[in-house]
Amino acid sequence: MAPGLPTPKKYFVTAGAAEGSTPLNAFDNALLAARIGNVNLIRVSSILPPGTEYDPDLELPPGALVPTAYGYIISTTPGEIISAACGVGISRESFGVIMEFSGKCTAQEARAQIESMIREAFARRGMELVDMKIEAVEHEVKRIACALAAVPLWY
Amino acid sequence: MAPGLPTPKKYFVTAGAAEGSTPLNAFDNALLAARIGNVNLIRVSSILPPGTEYDPDLELPPGALVPTAYGYIISTTPGEIISAACGVGISRESFGVIMEFSGKCTAQEARAQIESMIREAFARRGMELVDMKIEAVEHEVKRIACALAAVPLWY
Amino acid sequence: MAPGLPTPKKYFVTAGAAEGSTPLNAFDNALLAARIGNVNLIRVSSILPPGTEYDPDLELPPGALVPTAYGYIISTTPGEIISAACGVGISRESFGVIMEFSGKCTAQEARAQIESMIREAFARRGMELVDMKIEAVEHEVKRIACALAAVPLWY
Repeated sequence: MAPGLPTPKKYFVTAGAAEGSTPLNAFDNALLAARIGNVNLIRVSSILPPGTEYDPDLELPPGALVPTAYGYIISTTPGEIISAACGVGISRESFGVIMEFSGKCTAQEARAQIESMIREAFARRGMELVDMKIEAVEHEVKRIACALAAVPLWY
Repeated sequence: MAPGLPTPKKYFVTAGAAEGSTPLNAFDNALLAARIGNVNLIRVSSILPPGTEYDPDLELPPGALVPTAYGYIISTTPGEIISAACGVGISRESFGVIMEFSGKCTAQEARAQIESMIREAFARRGMELVDMKIEAVEHEVKRIACALAAVPLWY
Repeated sequence: MAPGLPTPKKYFVTAGAAEGSTPLNAFDNALLAARIGNVNLIRVSSILPPGTEYDPDLELPPGALVPTAYGYIISTTPGEIISAACGVGISRESFGVIMEFSGKCTAQEARAQIESMIREAFARRGMELVDMKIEAVEHEVKRIACALAAVPLWY
């Protein structure tokens, strides 16, 4: 087979929220809060490749192209509670499934939603779920804010 | 020239629809129905590289990063008819153009829309259209459903 | 470290607007007007890698996978003024930040918005801003139109 795009080998799970003076700056600041603000996210949907290793201390080179599953919400309604969650369902011997969720709810509700979505994805594939890693963040909007959760994939 | 991202060499055209207990699960299930649920789709817009070979039996490794042009619609309105179509316009000697469409219409209407969009894309480029490959899917929503059509590109 | 996706080495800044007979054709035609209509854009968010070289004459091979930060607006309201702008903030020795904006406003307003967004992104990172490259486009909608601005990254 001719070589394609290289399949990622490592991942972590992260979440962050921030205010900004514009919606895109709020998004940018939420990425910085989640420790992924200085790379080029390429959005993917959303499988953890077989054998991918969990590495919470992964350092991403500035400007790198980083395949990432993510969900986010931007709100311009002061006082509103917004949350985002992202999670990975892990199987024993095969690939995993990544789910993301965001909404006007608590982090606890977003996390519960992710758990339920991962369970359905595994049931639908007839796969056994052995573990889940989920991160969630909740934020009360002051002026313009973004809550974001992500699973960056790397090498 | 320094090497960039490798240009895809193969493609197929696919479509699928499914219900799910959340919008993202419906999307995930539609991907599975379209035979692309266990890879990481990277959305692209939307050119078939010169010399790309049609391969309807292409097997994508689980978790692979797969450049894919796709369109989809998610509906939570029971009884609604939703459709998605995706197609490739092929030239004799150069690159092709990919178009995607989704809406609250029949698969036949979505397919007709794709044909018209491809014809315009070729006319606009002054290129001769020698063939089209289109897939479309139609679904009546039970509770939460997604209709999706895609052109995955691979190596 | 195992090799990941290659980090881009060159960039340019571009903008274009066009009419089309469908929203996606308007988008396709705006890409052509911006000189990036015959490649596969992979949307990224949005860092200029350290050492990336400005090359306004860059030729992109047809069908290539091109990491690109972009913003766009599609309007179907005849007479409406739409604009899109995209810009790069450049630091002396490190990476840069890319911002994109689109809206129902003039190109001048879109450009001013980009300037302000880049300044905030640099302030937030504690980085010194030494230069900005911004392109903007404005269009009065006849029937169905798209205004788009982009920073393609390449090798």
